Amino acid sequence: MSPTTRRIVLDRFCDGLPEAADFRIETAPMPVPREGQFLVRNILISVDPGTRARLSGKASYVPPLKLGDTVGAFSVGEIIESRNPDFAVGEIVALAVGWTEHVIGDPRGFVRRIGDRRLPLAAWLGALGVSGMTGWFGLHRVARLQAGETVVVTSAAGAVGSAAAQLARIHGCRTIGIAGGPAKCNWLTETARLDAAIDYKAVDDLGAAIAAAAPKGVDVLFDNVGNQMIDTVIPLMRQNGRIVVSGQIDAYNQDEAAGAGIRNTRAVITQRLAMQGRVVFDDLPEWGGAEAAMADHMLSGDLVGRWEVMNGLEATPDAFAGLFRGENTGRRLVRLGPDPEGFPQDQSLDQPGDRS
Amino acid sequence: MSPTTRRIVLDRFCDGLPEAADFRIETAPMPVPREGQFLVRNILISVDPGTRARLSGKASYVPPLKLGDTVGAFSVGEIIESRNPDFAVGEIVALAVGWTEHVIGDPRGFVRRIGDRRLPLAAWLGALGVSGMTGWFGLHRVARLQAGETVVVTSAAGAVGSAAAQLARIHGCRTIGIAGGPAKCNWLTETARLDAAIDYKAVDDLGAAIAAAAPKGVDVLFDNVGNQMIDTVIPLMRQNGRIVVSGQIDAYNQDEAAGAGIRNTRAVITQRLAMQGRVVFDDLPEWGGAEAAMADHMLSGDLVGRWEVMNGLEATPDAFAGLFRGENTGRRLVRLGPDPEGFPQDQSLDQPGDRS
Repeated sequence: MSPTTRRIVLDRFCDGLPEAADFRIETAPMPVPREGQFLVRNILISVDPGTRARLSGKASYVPPLKLGDTVGAFSVGEIIESRNPDFAVGEIVALAVGWTEHVIGDPRGFVRRIGDRRLPLAAWLGALGVSGMTGWFGLHRVARLQAGETVVVTSAAGAVGSAAAQLARIHGCRTIGIAGGPAKCNWLTETARLDAAIDYKAVDDLGAAIAAAAPKGVDVLFDNVGNQMIDTVIPLMRQNGRIVVSGQIDAYNQDEAAGAGIRNTRAVITQRLAMQGRVVFDDLPEWGGAEAAMADHMLSGDLVGRWEVMNGLEATPDAFAGLFRGENTGRRLVRLGPDPEGFPQDQSLDQPGDRS
Repeated sequence: MSPTTRRIVLDRFCDGLPEAADFRIETAPMPVPREGQFLVRNILISVDPGTRARLSGKASYVPPLKLGDTVGAFSVGEIIESRNPDFAVGEIVALAVGWTEHVIGDPRGFVRRIGDRRLPLAAWLGALGVSGMTGWFGLHRVARLQAGETVVVTSAAGAVGSAAAQLARIHGCRTIGIAGGPAKCNWLTETARLDAAIDYKAVDDLGAAIAAAAPKGVDVLFDNVGNQMIDTVIPLMRQNGRIVVSGQIDAYNQDEAAGAGIRNTRAVITQRLAMQGRVVFDDLPEWGGAEAAMADHMLSGDLVGRWEVMNGLEATPDAFAGLFRGENTGRRLVRLGPDPEGFPQDQSLDQPGDRS
């Protein structure tokens, strides 16, 4: 019998919040690398909120998945077969893949080689991966963060937010995190050591709560939520303030035209505000330096990784659906196989939501 | 009898569209310069849409005028008395003043010396003044305009827009102007020589009309109108597009929270868009170079000034109210006195709406 692998495909289009039943597991022949490619067994795969935009079957800013298509994700895995002399069997790589047990790696696409084994493999899908890099380049390249500034990070206990918020604190900024629920807010002040955390579910007037935590005003808003959050913070911004449009989890499940709009734009002129979006892959040539700096922050304990690991491909659809129920604590990953030798166990870092 | 001067003050707070009856003329003692100051007879004063935000009596991003306060404006005038050795009687200056026949000039405030007498004085309140500089620095500093890009300018027949649109064309950009009515659009293509003009009052689907005029997409939106216009253009923008938030005439008469919001923000991330506001006075140290370049463009005929001149202080309130009825063609000015010697007459430049 030929070898096989398993993957998760879209079984029906999502309407509103995604559900586990929108997906199904499929068995497929093991993929075969061509010249220049290699075969990877995925060890950890991610579930990403941004994936939602491709699951409605409707034209959007990203091409929609068709029914039966494999759902996209990032992974870290081990090369188990190679037809590329630069990538040896046994090497560990991070890839943009799908919810699959095995995948073809191709250096013409997104491939990050993981040589540094000092941190748990999961970190390379978190603070050292796409989510951490999104925080890094958003703060340093888009916002050009300066020490002493006041920074507000929304969805601050999430994958991107937890990295961005700690980076802002490390950079010497007064850092205010916004999250939902006391557990996340407690994590933000106790473990991530932010200056303040605001539970948006527990305050009547979020703007007033942010204003109280930011007595000098807000220099940088690092937003992962969407228009309504931006609208709330704009009136609190100082001159030459910057808004990093990093993510829009509020918008992924709804029709854009029906959603909240940014109305409070007078201050864009009077306060000379700048609002900017960026795609983290544009900065790929400079990831190496950022990864190394982030790894140092993690090893020194300055920056705490925040992820949780579910077990087995079968767990993936509900792990994804749970993102939109606000369940996740940091980066949510699914383990498909054992770690290779030489990586420390996940337990060495703070993982309040670890369910592996 | 002591000498007197006249000024226009706010007589009642504006509610919705301003009317001439919201203002009254007052006679006051002639102001007396202190040490370091000088006295100016205003020759031309401006009426500015942005003034509207201060006329409601409500707290706003700018301090509101109280009843009886003089209404703000810009002027060009002649120094008729000086207690500052650097500013001689007979010199011509541009100032930020009010609707007044005479005003005290103080070099600690906004004072531009006008030495170049090759262009009509009115140009120094138009393309060579605040409105032209707003176009210049918006395009060059905020948008960092590149030759060959596609630029959309809204309110393109207005004071700022007409300067910005022609500058974009001069810079080698495909330039599309949006304005209301066939006369303005005809001016944009015939006199300002833009690549295309769109009459927003005459099209059913403004977005589709812009898309047709910008087949490669829009690199830069220079917006003078407000959120709804930005929302219309965002989906048409190319990667790394820039939105210059230059003015918001749509918003000046309405409550911000009730107005249109910017909803189409997904492309801010996927297309890496940047939206930025700027106040032209921040660039004051570099106005000199921009003024000289603009003057050269005007003298060569590359850039056509667009202004109209009403006569007499009494005409000012209705000249202002008319801005919000869409009456003005370019920069609207009021003449309070004769030009000094050596300046060419207004008639040397295109002034389709001249009523002086």
